[in-house]
Amino acid sequence: MNPVRPTRRGVLTGAAVVGAAGLGAGASALAGREAAATPGATRTVPFHGARQAGITTPAQDSLVFAALDVTTSRAGELADVLQRWSEAAATMATGAPVGGPGGLGGAADEPPLDTGEAHELPPANLTVTLGYGPSLFDGRFGLAGRRPAALEELPALPGEQLDPTRCGGDLCLQACADDPQVAFHAVRNLVRIGRGVVAVRWVQLGFGRTATTSAGQPTPRNLMGFKDGTANLRAEDTAGLDRHVWVGGEGAPAADQEWMRGGTYLVARRIRMLVEAWDRAPLGEQERVIGRAKVSGAPLTGTSEFDPPDLARTSATGEPVIDVAAHMRLAAPETNGGARILRRGYSYTDGLDLTTGQLDAGLFFICFGNDPASQFVAIQRRLGARDGLTEYLKHTGSAIFACPPGTAEGESWGQGLFT
Amino acid sequence: MNPVRPTRRGVLTGAAVVGAAGLGAGASALAGREAAATPGATRTVPFHGARQAGITTPAQDSLVFAALDVTTSRAGELADVLQRWSEAAATMATGAPVGGPGGLGGAADEPPLDTGEAHELPPANLTVTLGYGPSLFDGRFGLAGRRPAALEELPALPGEQLDPTRCGGDLCLQACADDPQVAFHAVRNLVRIGRGVVAVRWVQLGFGRTATTSAGQPTPRNLMGFKDGTANLRAEDTAGLDRHVWVGGEGAPAADQEWMRGGTYLVARRIRMLVEAWDRAPLGEQERVIGRAKVSGAPLTGTSEFDPPDLARTSATGEPVIDVAAHMRLAAPETNGGARILRRGYSYTDGLDLTTGQLDAGLFFICFGNDPASQFVAIQRRLGARDGLTEYLKHTGSAIFACPPGTAEGESWGQGLFT
Repeated sequence: MNPVRPTRRGVLTGAAVVGAAGLGAGASALAGREAAATPGATRTVPFHGARQAGITTPAQDSLVFAALDVTTSRAGELADVLQRWSEAAATMATGAPVGGPGGLGGAADEPPLDTGEAHELPPANLTVTLGYGPSLFDGRFGLAGRRPAALEELPALPGEQLDPTRCGGDLCLQACADDPQVAFHAVRNLVRIGRGVVAVRWVQLGFGRTATTSAGQPTPRNLMGFKDGTANLRAEDTAGLDRHVWVGGEGAPAADQEWMRGGTYLVARRIRMLVEAWDRAPLGEQERVIGRAKVSGAPLTGTSEFDPPDLARTSATGEPVIDVAAHMRLAAPETNGGARILRRGYSYTDGLDLTTGQLDAGLFFICFGNDPASQFVAIQRRLGARDGLTEYLKHTGSAIFACPPGTAEGESWGQGLFT
Repeated sequence: MNPVRPTRRGVLTGAAVVGAAGLGAGASALAGREAAATPGATRTVPFHGARQAGITTPAQDSLVFAALDVTTSRAGELADVLQRWSEAAATMATGAPVGGPGGLGGAADEPPLDTGEAHELPPANLTVTLGYGPSLFDGRFGLAGRRPAALEELPALPGEQLDPTRCGGDLCLQACADDPQVAFHAVRNLVRIGRGVVAVRWVQLGFGRTATTSAGQPTPRNLMGFKDGTANLRAEDTAGLDRHVWVGGEGAPAADQEWMRGGTYLVARRIRMLVEAWDRAPLGEQERVIGRAKVSGAPLTGTSEFDPPDLARTSATGEPVIDVAAHMRLAAPETNGGARILRRGYSYTDGLDLTTGQLDAGLFFICFGNDPASQFVAIQRRLGARDGLTEYLKHTGSAIFACPPGTAEGESWGQGLFT
């Protein structure tokens, strides 16, 4: 028999330790494989703030991402759901059930307010981030005049083989947590609150982070076995975030983006990796295609991960050391007029592709930026046209969302757009 | 910049702490939400032993389960893959890459032996468990005479709506770990080793354990929000395991099971929960259907989780307090001639069911027992015929496998069957 309090899992991660302290804490370096445990009470990310959580928050371990469509034509009903979502997300971020402590039980003749599967799990740094898709502004809700020009459907891009059932959406909910059951619980309960007003369009789970959004986080590896996100924007680089991520971060936003001040745009791409083909590629080919050493993550012109790459260096035979088609060259700010993005993606696997018998696995790419056209779209055009990696990838899902700024206690996610 | 060693995640869980110490350690109680961190070196489960790991091992947090078919007709090729799998699984269980430390890099003109995505992750208590399906004994490999009578395809059962692409398999690999990327890495690399000899038939991911296999583990909740596995067999109950789980655990095995001595049979069922319907059911209905209180997990005749249920007790009006159709009554050993099973399942979600617009989520049920006909099959017949839970469930996948005994260093999983 088991007399202890039934805490299912005490997931204590490096990400959590940093996340707990919030953005201002800087690098809380991990001493090798064994990160120190921190008290659970600090493993929460505040829901309220000038900006939404889940953007510069140190990337948690798990993702549940849902795109939703609005099924009502009454703007008031949608605004009401956004208000209730905001309250529920704030509550869940503290580790409490929807409806507060009483939300698990209640009257015998009514369904409980909370579905219960996260009860006694730690808060696990849960964040929920909301976004609006371009289709929300199509006129159904009287919002046609509020759509910022920056929020437009992504153009056709090279390397795509899009599945329409994995694209688009009027809204998105990005739930991240260090426990997948906590992230799943959040999305499930928000979908439940929205029943009759919103319906799920698609869902994507991510099982391991592929980006570092804080200097305190070690760089993870993607399913190609390479470190991913070495050169990512990080939470500590506030000037960089103001310049590249936040709407109105530098000066006043464009007039059509006034309600988005302090918000940002989210681009999501489901990028399948043809892992069987990749696994057959020789090490030298893999490293040439990426432009980095596989084990250390160092650029091919350096010896350790954070050595600045020397894109101009040539070998004795006059060849560029970092290949002209190397992914890291083509994605580098130097190659893209200084454009940078904040990446926050996750590895995924959705089992077997029955049509090919191969694993359906890869990267659910998420990035944030204040000008998708000059950032994600421009970079992806450059990558898709020349990147040696393209032959190992297939973009199968795509969406863009406007993530409004954060909220203060009692405020609603929807207040900037609906008032 | 980040000078620390790039350890991606230090996932330190209660399960891991117990798992580290192995089966003999008994209950290592967790002091509430904050489990103490233990050194990573101990967070491994030995691969070698009289029995396979991953059966009575304290349930880890994540599952990747693959069913495979053999695509060659040469028994020798299959035996060779089993030998190579055994070596690779033993290596990965220590946290090392396939092929040892050099497996990550190597010659530039060859693919690395290991795919690399688990490099620098902790061993995370990885276990890989092998099983043979009934179809392996169909004569292709000269094994027809070796099939134990206990290993037969499951009969049709009530509550099924089986998807043939989620059923069966010549072989299975059950990878469990406290980091999903470690479990994924193990299956991916074993599939890669087996290329040309085996092909994946289906894959199922599980994101949260729904069973407790050790007294040191708190009871988790399933996606219905109820504690699951309160009355499960546990590793500490060695007499119960000998009686119900291990082939030949009590006395000599039947002649046709001699090579299975110390092994067991695995039944896997993908059980979709109709979560939207469940979420609309009143609390009283949910508790009546399960037979336990939702928040505490106590039987309706008791006040705390581990109170023994009183199946005979009636209310003042003469009604049984635990309903005649309650899941816990129908699944109880008392109702099943003493039959018990070792459950080791996981919650899953595979996104949206596009035909209904509802979440495809539920329980990937796994159980172990030495006599599936009198254990899983008999219990499921009883449940399917009367269980109040049945209207909220749909069995969509099904398979049975014979898990051979464990191996000593240098031995192969396949040695009992192929020699």
